[in-house]
This record gives sequence, structure tokens and C-alpha cells, in this order.
Amino acid sequence: MEKLEPIYEGKAKKLFETDDPDILLLEYKNTLTAFNALKKTTMEGKGALNNKISSYILQYLASRGVPNHFVKMVDEVRQLVRKVEIIPLEVVVRNITTGSICKRLGVPEGINLNPPLVEFYLKNDELGDPIVTEDQAISFGWASEEEIQKIKNMALQVNQLLKDLFKPLGITLVDFKLEFGKTKDGEIILADEISPDTCRFWDSSSGDRLDKDRFRKDLGNVLEAYQEIWRRLSAKGEE
Amino acid sequence: MEKLEPIYEGKAKKLFETDDPDILLLEYKNTLTAFNALKKTTMEGKGALNNKISSYILQYLASRGVPNHFVKMVDEVRQLVRKVEIIPLEVVVRNITTGSICKRLGVPEGINLNPPLVEFYLKNDELGDPIVTEDQAISFGWASEEEIQKIKNMALQVNQLLKDLFKPLGITLVDFKLEFGKTKDGEIILADEISPDTCRFWDSSSGDRLDKDRFRKDLGNVLEAYQEIWRRLSAKGEE
Ligand SMILES: Nc1ncnc2c1ncn2[C@@H]1O[C@H](COP(=O)(O)OP(=O)(O)OP(=O)(O)O)[C@@H](O)[C@H]1O
Ligand SMILES: Nc1ncnc2c1ncn2[C@@H]1O[C@H](COP(=O)(O)OP(=O)(O)OP(=O)(O)O)[C@@H](O)[C@H]1O
Ligand SMILES: [Mg+2]
Ligand SMILES: [Mg+2]
Repeated sequence: MEKLEPIYEGKAKKLFETDDPDILLLEYKNTLTAFNALKKTTMEGKGALNNKISSYILQYLASRGVPNHFVKMVDEVRQLVRKVEIIPLEVVVRNITTGSICKRLGVPEGINLNPPLVEFYLKNDELGDPIVTEDQAISFGWASEEEIQKIKNMALQVNQLLKDLFKPLGITLVDFKLEFGKTKDGEIILADEISPDTCRFWDSSSGDRLDKDRFRKDLGNVLEAYQEIWRRLSAKGEE
Repeated sequence: MEKLEPIYEGKAKKLFETDDPDILLLEYKNTLTAFNALKKTTMEGKGALNNKISSYILQYLASRGVPNHFVKMVDEVRQLVRKVEIIPLEVVVRNITTGSICKRLGVPEGINLNPPLVEFYLKNDELGDPIVTEDQAISFGWASEEEIQKIKNMALQVNQLLKDLFKPLGITLVDFKLEFGKTKDGEIILADEISPDTCRFWDSSSGDRLDKDRFRKDLGNVLEAYQEIWRRLSAKGEE
């Protein structure tokens, strides 16, 4: 596995080709961005933590029947994943209202959503990742009706499994973002990452934020929060 | 029927109570606004045209099985309507892409949408009438799942009937906005207005805009376009 130019460098990760055309190398960077990259910093050790947390969670989900791109960790900051064609929709699942949805729709913070809310956002940084309805996604060809249904069901299944995982660790899963992709056989699998960069985790007793909101809101101790998530997960034992 | 203070004065209409608690008087104003009232003008005769056009269309729809609030015209600018509790969602039906959706989602202008696209926007001027998904509307109590389904079906039925009405008049129905409300018996009926203020009408041969886009885009001859719509509708004969 040679160190080549990345085929894609995003805000939080780099993607490299490998000798196997179906496998990519995903490298987690130490960059932390928010508000569509208007706010930006670097944090030594963040990449390694997200690599470990995401690997742990994706393995946990795979063992419970959620097909995903994770193959194996190769070192501190890199993992092998199955190459997919990413469906250009960010899929957000919400259990409690907070953040953008409250501002955009004027709904109060902290409402319990039961059933959880699944939302789709168009992956387009220039347009600011606008929200799309299911009908729009279908009309404009971003996903088929069957794919939308499949993705929605998988997202809700992931939500239930993540709540089962984090509740005994004293962590409330508030909301999170997923990405899905299509393998060369046309199978839809979960891709990208699941980490404190992409989830809102609240300490169930203190309410402390244990995720990227510490960076967004300048609450301090960002890396410590990511470490705490990894400490509780790894104390639970191997997945 | 005394002239009282309106119980509501909006951007385009005033609402008055009548002796009958189930009936309101709707007065069409000559004001024309766009871009959430950032752009504003007054146009002598606009209210009378919209009163006639909307009355004609609502009668046409009622006779074809779409229950709505229209009772009768009382004079040039006023009509009696059944009082409803407005469902706080603006319902947009699109046959061809144009306007806000193209800017927000980066999709090309002029795409034919088949099936037509139905969208819901929260009626909230302060928030700029943000788009909402069906799941959000249900989660936040703006409409029930059954109401959403009912409204969507009625909106599509209205679309088909309006296309049938306007096509022989050489007018292409591009998109339009509807509002629905609940009567005191809990029935969902079509309310508000259907006029060149709330529809995009294109002349089928020339492509000329025959609606409020003439005002939005400073194309001139705004009132003439509204007159042209009324001329073609009234030439068709009584509804
Ligand atoms: N298995 C996979 N196969 C192909 N691409 C993937 C896979 N998993 C994730 N990706 C893509 O790799 C990129 C990871 O980089 P990163 O998360 O840093 O991007 P980003 O800055 O968030 O930008 P964006 O996600 O909007 O492209 C993303 O574009 C993601 O969609
Ligand atoms: N049958 C009805 N019963 C009660 N209210 C109605 C009925 N039909 C329409 N309305 C309401 O009457 C008002 C009409 O005024 P207008 O269209 O000028 O309002 P607006 O400035 O567009 O503001 P908004 O529609 O956002 O309230 C609207 O609020 C509309 O929802
Ligand atoms: Mg990303
Ligand atoms: Mg109105």
C-alpha cells in the first residue's frame, strides 16, 4: 500500500485508492470544521480518536445486521473501506430537537421526537447542504423511491442500535448524520463515519456536550470530550 | 353587513367578520408584494381582478368536487367565504421547475415534473416561510399524517383540474400555492385565493409571463397580464 495522492480530500478525511479497485483507504484528519467550514481548527489526536470510534461503531453495526463499508483499521488514523458511489444525500436522524432545525423552523429546543425524525439534506457545500423532501429527492434523481425507503429504514435501525449502545454508557444520542452508498453490485450500504464529529452526544446525567458542539459553541475541552466517548466505548470491551 | 375593523389584514387581503359566525368577508386589496414583502407596490384594479379570477376558479373547482371556502361575490373587491382554521402550511404544486426551488437546490429551470411535485412551506413570515418535510409537519403538529395525505391528494386534483381549465385557454400552469383550512365540523377544505398572485401562468405560445413574476422581475405590464388571464377565463363563459 503506497502513499499516493488522495483521490479526494474533504474537510475531515482523505480518500486513497489501494491495489484492490473495490477497496479505499480512509485517513482521518485532525481538522475540525463547522458552519460549512467558516470555522476551522486543527486538533492533534482528533483523527486517531474518530478512526477508533468510527471503526468500533461500524463493526458493532455490522455484527447487528447493518451492512456498511468498514473493512479494518490499518493504523492509528487509517482504515480500509469498501468503495461505494455515495448517494448525494446526508441523512439526519433526530431524537431530540436542537441546532439548525430549531432556528430554521422556530421549534423549541429539547423536544423529544417519538418516532425519531429522519431528514435528507443535499450534499452540496456551495448550496449549504439544503434540506430536501423525499419527493424532491426522487423527482431530481438523487435517489429512487425504493432507495429512500430502504435508507430511511436503515437509518432508523442504526438509531435504535446506537441508542442501545450508548444508553448503558450514560450517553444520550440526540441526533446524527449518516451517508449511504451503492456498491458495484448495487447494494446500498452505510458509508462515511459515525463519530463525535457527526453525532450529538449528551452526558445523560450532567447534560454535558460530548461532541463537536463543544467546538461550534466554544465550550472548550473538545478533545477531552472525544476522549471520553472513546474511554466509555472501549471500557465496554471489544466489538 | 357593516363595515367594521378587519379581524386580519394581510399583504393582499383583509378579512372581516359578518353577522354569521361561520362566514367571513374577504376583501382583495390592490397591494402587490414579493420577496416576503421586501418589494411592494399598489396597482389600481388588481384587487378586483383577483376577486373575479379567484371566484371563477373556486366555483369551477367546487363544481368538480373540490370542497372550498367560496360562497359568493358581494361586490367588485369582496367575496363571502366559509370561515376555517387555516392549516399553517402553504402547499405548492409544481409542473415545471422555476424560481426558488432552482436557486435553493441548484436544479435547472424548465424541467418538466412528472408526476408533479407537492411541497409544504411553514406559514411564518418571520422565518421566511421555510420548506418543511411531511415528517416534520407531522412531528411538530402542523398537520396529522392523514391530513397531509388528504391535502396532497386534493392539491394534485386541483392541479389536474386547473391544467384542464387553462390549457384550452393557451395558458401553461407552471406552479401555484394553495392554503387549506378546517371547518368547525373538522372537514378540510381549500381556502384563500387562486389568482395570478399565487400561480405562475405562462402563455403557451409566446412563453410570456402572465402573473406576479412580471412584478418580481420588473417585466412591466403587470395589470395587463392579470387582465389577460381574466379576459381568457371570462370569454370561456360562466362557471
Ligand atoms: N466507502 C466510501 N466510498 C467512497 N466515498 C466515500 C466512502 N465513505 C465516505 N466517502 C466520501 O469520502 C469523503 C470523506 O471526506 P470528508 O468527510 O472529509 O468530506 P467533507 O469535507 O465532509 O465533504 P463532503 O462529505 O461534503 O464530500 C466524503 O465525500 C464522503 O462522502
Ligand atoms: N376561509 C378562510 N378562513 C379564515 N382565514 C382565511 C380563509 N381564507 C384565507 N384566510 C387567511 O386570510 C389571510 C388572507 O390575507 P393575505 O393573503 O393578505 O395574508 P398574507 O399577507 O399572505 O399573510 P399570510 O397568508 O402569511 O397570513 C391569510 O392569512 C389566509 O391564510
Ligand atoms: Mg464528510
Ligand atoms: Mg396570503
